[in-house]
Amino acid sequence: MNKEVVIGIDIGGTFTKLGITDRSGNLYYENVIETDKYEDPNTFVDAVHEMVHEVLKKHEDDFTIKGVGIGAPNANYYTGNIEFAPNLIWKGVIPFSNIFSNKFDLPVALTNDANAAAIGEMVFGAAQNMKNFLMITLGTGLGSGLVVNGDLVYGHDGFAGELGHVTVVENGRKCGCGKRGCLETYVSATGIKRTMFELMATETDDSPLRNVSFNQLEAKDITDAANNGDILAQKAYDRTGTMLGSALANTVAHISPQAIFLFGGLAKAGKWIFEPTKISMEQHLLEIFRGKIKVLSSALMDKNIAVLGAAALMWKELS
Amino acid sequence: MNKEVVIGIDIGGTFTKLGITDRSGNLYYENVIETDKYEDPNTFVDAVHEMVHEVLKKHEDDFTIKGVGIGAPNANYYTGNIEFAPNLIWKGVIPFSNIFSNKFDLPVALTNDANAAAIGEMVFGAAQNMKNFLMITLGTGLGSGLVVNGDLVYGHDGFAGELGHVTVVENGRKCGCGKRGCLETYVSATGIKRTMFELMATETDDSPLRNVSFNQLEAKDITDAANNGDILAQKAYDRTGTMLGSALANTVAHISPQAIFLFGGLAKAGKWIFEPTKISMEQHLLEIFRGKIKVLSSALMDKNIAVLGAAALMWKELS
Repeated sequence: MNKEVVIGIDIGGTFTKLGITDRSGNLYYENVIETDKYEDPNTFVDAVHEMVHEVLKKHEDDFTIKGVGIGAPNANYYTGNIEFAPNLIWKGVIPFSNIFSNKFDLPVALTNDANAAAIGEMVFGAAQNMKNFLMITLGTGLGSGLVVNGDLVYGHDGFAGELGHVTVVENGRKCGCGKRGCLETYVSATGIKRTMFELMATETDDSPLRNVSFNQLEAKDITDAANNGDILAQKAYDRTGTMLGSALANTVAHISPQAIFLFGGLAKAGKWIFEPTKISMEQHLLEIFRGKIKVLSSALMDKNIAVLGAAALMWKELS
Repeated sequence: MNKEVVIGIDIGGTFTKLGITDRSGNLYYENVIETDKYEDPNTFVDAVHEMVHEVLKKHEDDFTIKGVGIGAPNANYYTGNIEFAPNLIWKGVIPFSNIFSNKFDLPVALTNDANAAAIGEMVFGAAQNMKNFLMITLGTGLGSGLVVNGDLVYGHDGFAGELGHVTVVENGRKCGCGKRGCLETYVSATGIKRTMFELMATETDDSPLRNVSFNQLEAKDITDAANNGDILAQKAYDRTGTMLGSALANTVAHISPQAIFLFGGLAKAGKWIFEPTKISMEQHLLEIFRGKIKVLSSALMDKNIAVLGAAALMWKELS
């Protein structure tokens, strides 16, 4: 039986994941390719094409490929370009959609990774009946995808949804973007590490993490420590959630979403992040919004949301 | 010749303005009625009906009324209710659309006043070709209407766009909403008055406004003083614009609008408010947004934007 499928591709700084999926989100094939091995984006696309082609040769009668959906950092949905992505080896403006569609001779849709995650949640996850929601991805940085009236918010230039860079502390922590006090300098894997080190300086509680250097410490170590009763690690999560909750309250004042989904490493810390986030959000909400907005784990937390989301983007374009 | 028209109604705490307008925004009739004279919303609607009816009797052959558009504080587009409006004498939840449609036997659409202003700008003003923009109304408080992908953002519950209540200073000024540090406690007619009094306390510059009591001072006095070279008044505008600009940068990170329109008393202060707002916004913007977002005066500044906006809402529903 021949099945209509799309290719979903999640491009990260180090690894690129890809999958072949049907309309229901069933993954028939998954693979990984090293992004930073390819200095030229064209040879990268050639390698992806070859990889997919080999699979397809074996399953010629099984699949009809309808298109390619791509999630990538600093990707612009309108132009199909990846623009000035600090975490990719390809600098400047890369006409990524064009390169892919020329090589694959298929429709291609491109958006940033957090938007792809939001679409994944909408098409395959817990937001299937939601018209207004927010996706927050907590990785090295903080990404976000806003859905309003059932559509992704791209803004006039394709760059909307940069919640990682709202200013939460005037003259606060230095951000990779050049500004100071951006949300992601507090709320992200890197952000909680910085908070942990701030707490080591200001507090006196003992902690095994005091034996770990800044460069060696990972967010997961803080989660493990919190689970083991480490007071400093718990305080670090408390501060992180408090900061996130107050920022989310401001986002609610903008778009009043039905739910806010958290995805990524920090979200896996469970109650350590969710509880202070909810408390702080409720405290900062205008009364009319209180008790209404759900803060949830992504339903695709343990699945390949980025690949599924990229595929979902293409399915959305096709429908 | 018979012309299709709608009734636009702008309900304020003290006065309600109404007008009859065609699809092009020509106003054929305008009037004002005292809102707070009517303790019962039903008798208020009766009075509005009588007022309109008298005009229509004289112009029976000229006009066909197609509907009624209403802008009101705390109005919910989805439910047609006015809910817990602190500035209206009608308390609790008022099924305003129902009362109007029963009395007028016409389609009725209701939204909050700032949303109505945004629709007015979109249908009759400078946002006619814009799909993504922001309207900020600077009155006693700060209202906002967000337009994304060509549609007003109502959110899941009809209450989106409450930018006056984003928290800009943690534990800052007490707000009428019960919270502290809301944007409108700094950026509004009341906000700049509070800033002026803060400056009188912290600075030593002389100012004729030092002879005016808090209750007597009006925002317009501060504008006049700034125009007359009053250093304190100019500083008050500078702080107000700086605060507004940083808040707008956060909104840009959410929805990346093509333009931001300012409307209302403070916006009439011209350069005193626009210059610091633009400077501060640019400073707080992520690089990809810099130099792209226009901050403009509403093109309907000297027109009855609220009535036109309410009418435009109805025209939008009808089309």
